[in-house]
Amino acid sequence: MNSPRIGTLPAGPRDAISDVGEIRVGHVTLDRGGIQTGVTVVIPHSGDPFAEKIPAASAVINGFGKSVGLIQVEELGVFETPIALTNTFSVGAVMQAQIREAMAAHPKLGREWATVNPLVFECNDGFLNDIRTLAVTEEHYRTALANASADFVQGSVGAGRGMSAFELKGGIGTASRCVGGHTVGALVLANFGRIETLTLAGRPLGREITARRKDEGEPDKGSIIMLLATDAPLDARQLRRLAQRAGAGLARTGSVFGHGSGDIALAFTTAYTIPHLPNRPMPAQAMLHETRLDPLFFAAADAIEQAIVNALWHAEPVLGRDGHKRRTLREILRRLP
Amino acid sequence: MNSPRIGTLPAGPRDAISDVGEIRVGHVTLDRGGIQTGVTVVIPHSGDPFAEKIPAASAVINGFGKSVGLIQVEELGVFETPIALTNTFSVGAVMQAQIREAMAAHPKLGREWATVNPLVFECNDGFLNDIRTLAVTEEHYRTALANASADFVQGSVGAGRGMSAFELKGGIGTASRCVGGHTVGALVLANFGRIETLTLAGRPLGREITARRKDEGEPDKGSIIMLLATDAPLDARQLRRLAQRAGAGLARTGSVFGHGSGDIALAFTTAYTIPHLPNRPMPAQAMLHETRLDPLFFAAADAIEQAIVNALWHAEPVLGRDGHKRRTLREILRRLP
Amino acid sequence: MNSPRIGTLPAGPRDAISDVGEIRVGHVTLDRGGIQTGVTVVIPHSGDPFAEKIPAASAVINGFGKSVGLIQVEELGVFETPIALTNTFSVGAVMQAQIREAMAAHPKLGREWATVNPLVFECNDGFLNDIRTLAVTEEHYRTALANASADFVQGSVGAGRGMSAFELKGGIGTASRCVGGHTVGALVLANFGRIETLTLAGRPLGREITARRKDEGEPDKGSIIMLLATDAPLDARQLRRLAQRAGAGLARTGSVFGHGSGDIALAFTTAYTIPHLPNRPMPAQAMLHETRLDPLFFAAADAIEQAIVNALWHAEPVLGRDGHKRRTLREILRRLP
Amino acid sequence: MNSPRIGTLPAGPRDAISDVGEIRVGHVTLDRGGIQTGVTVVIPHSGDPFAEKIPAASAVINGFGKSVGLIQVEELGVFETPIALTNTFSVGAVMQAQIREAMAAHPKLGREWATVNPLVFECNDGFLNDIRTLAVTEEHYRTALANASADFVQGSVGAGRGMSAFELKGGIGTASRCVGGHTVGALVLANFGRIETLTLAGRPLGREITARRKDEGEPDKGSIIMLLATDAPLDARQLRRLAQRAGAGLARTGSVFGHGSGDIALAFTTAYTIPHLPNRPMPAQAMLHETRLDPLFFAAADAIEQAIVNALWHAEPVLGRDGHKRRTLREILRRLP
Repeated sequence: MNSPRIGTLPAGPRDAISDVGEIRVGHVTLDRGGIQTGVTVVIPHSGDPFAEKIPAASAVINGFGKSVGLIQVEELGVFETPIALTNTFSVGAVMQAQIREAMAAHPKLGREWATVNPLVFECNDGFLNDIRTLAVTEEHYRTALANASADFVQGSVGAGRGMSAFELKGGIGTASRCVGGHTVGALVLANFGRIETLTLAGRPLGREITARRKDEGEPDKGSIIMLLATDAPLDARQLRRLAQRAGAGLARTGSVFGHGSGDIALAFTTAYTIPHLPNRPMPAQAMLHETRLDPLFFAAADAIEQAIVNALWHAEPVLGRDGHKRRTLREILRRLP
Repeated sequence: MNSPRIGTLPAGPRDAISDVGEIRVGHVTLDRGGIQTGVTVVIPHSGDPFAEKIPAASAVINGFGKSVGLIQVEELGVFETPIALTNTFSVGAVMQAQIREAMAAHPKLGREWATVNPLVFECNDGFLNDIRTLAVTEEHYRTALANASADFVQGSVGAGRGMSAFELKGGIGTASRCVGGHTVGALVLANFGRIETLTLAGRPLGREITARRKDEGEPDKGSIIMLLATDAPLDARQLRRLAQRAGAGLARTGSVFGHGSGDIALAFTTAYTIPHLPNRPMPAQAMLHETRLDPLFFAAADAIEQAIVNALWHAEPVLGRDGHKRRTLREILRRLP
Repeated sequence: MNSPRIGTLPAGPRDAISDVGEIRVGHVTLDRGGIQTGVTVVIPHSGDPFAEKIPAASAVINGFGKSVGLIQVEELGVFETPIALTNTFSVGAVMQAQIREAMAAHPKLGREWATVNPLVFECNDGFLNDIRTLAVTEEHYRTALANASADFVQGSVGAGRGMSAFELKGGIGTASRCVGGHTVGALVLANFGRIETLTLAGRPLGREITARRKDEGEPDKGSIIMLLATDAPLDARQLRRLAQRAGAGLARTGSVFGHGSGDIALAFTTAYTIPHLPNRPMPAQAMLHETRLDPLFFAAADAIEQAIVNALWHAEPVLGRDGHKRRTLREILRRLP
Repeated sequence: MNSPRIGTLPAGPRDAISDVGEIRVGHVTLDRGGIQTGVTVVIPHSGDPFAEKIPAASAVINGFGKSVGLIQVEELGVFETPIALTNTFSVGAVMQAQIREAMAAHPKLGREWATVNPLVFECNDGFLNDIRTLAVTEEHYRTALANASADFVQGSVGAGRGMSAFELKGGIGTASRCVGGHTVGALVLANFGRIETLTLAGRPLGREITARRKDEGEPDKGSIIMLLATDAPLDARQLRRLAQRAGAGLARTGSVFGHGSGDIALAFTTAYTIPHLPNRPMPAQAMLHETRLDPLFFAAADAIEQAIVNALWHAEPVLGRDGHKRRTLREILRRLP
């Protein structure tokens, strides 16, 4: 059985963010009793991201979040490290690991050169994970980098290990869509949503599930990180427009961007890079004409919605701290009439 | 036959934006051959909006639009005229009318006092309406004000006369939702969307309609203006959060915030006003606690989706310039198997 | 006697915004008793701005203003008409004139094609000008276009006719600075500031002037529009950064961005254009490396400060409505010990 | 000899940010050979900042910076920890310390309750400090808290230990101004500027210093963090307006917001707090009328300029890594003719 399919656009060969350019994804998963958490990294290209920076922009759909690095991305239109995802309280450890990696690669960093801008996204996995332990270490980030591959697992892995979505098991999901000669890939860390609003590929599943339910359910305390990658040549302003469309895909799953949900999107392109050193030539890159963005916007919304569905679909049940557990979407579907 | 119902929250007595406070809505409709356009006004309270300003904030979901007044609303957190909606090329005439109305009420304006900030929203009705005629006059604005009532018509009226949505007849729609002792009202000027993406209360109607279609359809060249009113006491920052949720309701109808679509939301509260004169007391208003916003967010998304559905549902067929016409949603529904 | 010189960078041949590319500036000045106002236009290149759009971005330093067109500039990163400046209540007339000009040039506009985005900036000249008369007509805009030249007058002309700055006569000022093979030009509409804060090329002139003064002076009710043009190849994000530096030049003249002052900057480049039609090739333009922006930032701040000084310096005394008049900076300087 | 005085408004009793409410400031200074760095904390009130959150807003004047916490401050309009300042590479350690402090105070945090939003600002002190050692530990943050007092030292202390400004020794500076019954306090971490642009209380000192200089000087690689506190009752939108005025004070010292300088301002009020728990009453606080903000804007610009001057004035010479050292402003002034 495959996960429900979103939209009519074709997916790339892997239906994953790694269908775009040379993108690779790596996980470290911590599964030790009450510690159910991890790190996921997205490596944007096979070179050195500090030397060859990646054009990017973000859209903060709801800013109840603690991700770091976006102020500089917004100003300079690039990022310069692998992208890291983890739990809310482990951002400090992971950003330190990013700093040390960049220092190791560049002895001038923090001396003749300026510093590096860590880029770490987070969601709060505190329902399943004993987040107060700050269990993630710098070493976990390095291991996630070492694990990176174009082929990678979805669901209850990496940063997604302890995440919940729609009061079910959430986690990491990915997808891709091809349109007009370009590919748009998505990777999400899904940790949001109230079950009664869950809409699965257009089906109001949440209402079916909760029809006979008595209690009030949980408030939407989670968050979602939504990464969009494309090989289309876009500048930072256009990438901001693309990032904004993540919200459309998210809304179609039932979210209204809840107060307590840090709903944050980052879009980047692999079509060209920006050199760190000013004596290196700047790319003479013709960007896409603005009117050619619409197909990419549809692809982005579909890829995000698909990635969310995939996160739910591939999630395995997790038993976490204090006996907390989350059912999975597939369990639920099996039990429905 | 009634329009499909969105969500489970109860509507107010009119299922209209006028369920909030003393809000009234007035239309002027121009229906003269190729001239199919008009003006719609939303009067926020029964007093003088310049003397007692209305707390508000906007969310520019896609900024391909020519609305005026939002820079100052964003800075000062209030507006100070009735809200006007019209076609893209008539913004100048309507803003002049707003200025003259404010001057008539306040002889000091532009002399001892500063000026007034016109607030005019627009969509491009050029498919049905001969927009190049700049047919709207200042007098039309005044007539729309005079026509204002808590009971008002939806569909192909006022600013909505010439609008198209999903390649069908669009226009003015309204709705309201009640939650936690507060009401959220919505009024939209719907002029957006490609038919194949139309989702009607969760039903993928657009795909059903276009299943046997050969041609490519039209690009999304329209726009949507989304007004949200509430009687909950919110400050400008909280109103911006509410405005942002209009995007969730919009996305559920099938929009991905198309490149050419000016998707703009304004949220305001009727719970208190801000005096123009500094010698008048400022309101000692306790705002809603942030965690109490979630129910309002759900109400806002539902009210916006319902208002869009209502705009389509109540639209009458319009024959416009050069023989252009738009079918209505109800026609389509009657013909479907 | 020449105006005081700001900074150490060389000016272009005209010390004017028209040192950049093919920029031309035109004025219409209305001088009829209580009517002391006008229109100024900045024509960005010698071609058709709708067909070949100009990359641009804005910085809203204080948004108490009624300028129109910036929402779309922010979204799309271009403008597509000449830039117009006028008084606050004449924005409607001038935007209509811009629409009619674009319609005349493009019969498809508002029919097969979408609409045009008017770009009109304003300040409130109501102290000298009887702004309530809405004296500017569409014809005035066309005349200003016809008057445009690379050589143009500063001071109490065009949109600057009725403006006040630092309780002195303000108006139109311009300047340019050359650095690193590029030119940065500035044009301001100066209508802001309290006299006691006036700082003229570093000299605390305002304190000298008001040392023997008894009264409280006037609150800062004005505004300033600051245009920055450059021939350096910058994208919209970089142009936003440049626009932001207008605030540094402004602050050095004594402004703290007063509550009632609409302080708005627009930066644009003449290095390349963006075609309206998607079948025309997009420019394969290498942008400036980010680290090469600093010299431009210094040039921008100096050019803005110089343009403000020039607006004051070139202002002629104006006798306006109800016997209101403004002294000029040169009068003041002659009387100081 | 006292530091040059900025403006004409009176200072509070301490001429320090601690003139506002119950604000206290604490430092930890690391002075061990090449390690010249530290932590400074600003405690906003004597209660628990998580339980009683502080209304705040930021202005990112130039976003080349790695501060954390601002996304959530922007969304929710409050912060909920003491404010911390440190070097760029120590943000991770300090944010972890903030998390642990909040966890210790609130056992429900990360379990029944959501998480906490760390708020850490940074500048790059890598010229004097061996920043690659990541020398700051979590314990240093706690010690800085313990050291906090309304009376505190300025200059080469705390986070300011290794900072440079205008190629001189920079660091921590503070000031306050009183106007209209309210106080505005400022605290800066000054680490920005090229010496030739240094303007000291209106005197173009940088040009005097560099008149006989041959070399090119250093590019502006630094940053400045600018905190503004007031006891005036302002909401988050108004506090954003206040924060924006920090840029005016900064520009008057000679900055044009250099490309490489993370120029970031945060404004907060001590007039009221926002309870964490929704069952606690929200404050029924009348805010200041908008027209009463102008005096505060002048006070904010003056306080920021004074705080920058004070940072330079109070700086002691520091000998750092690899024999790097910075002269102080007072040394320079003594040697000038």
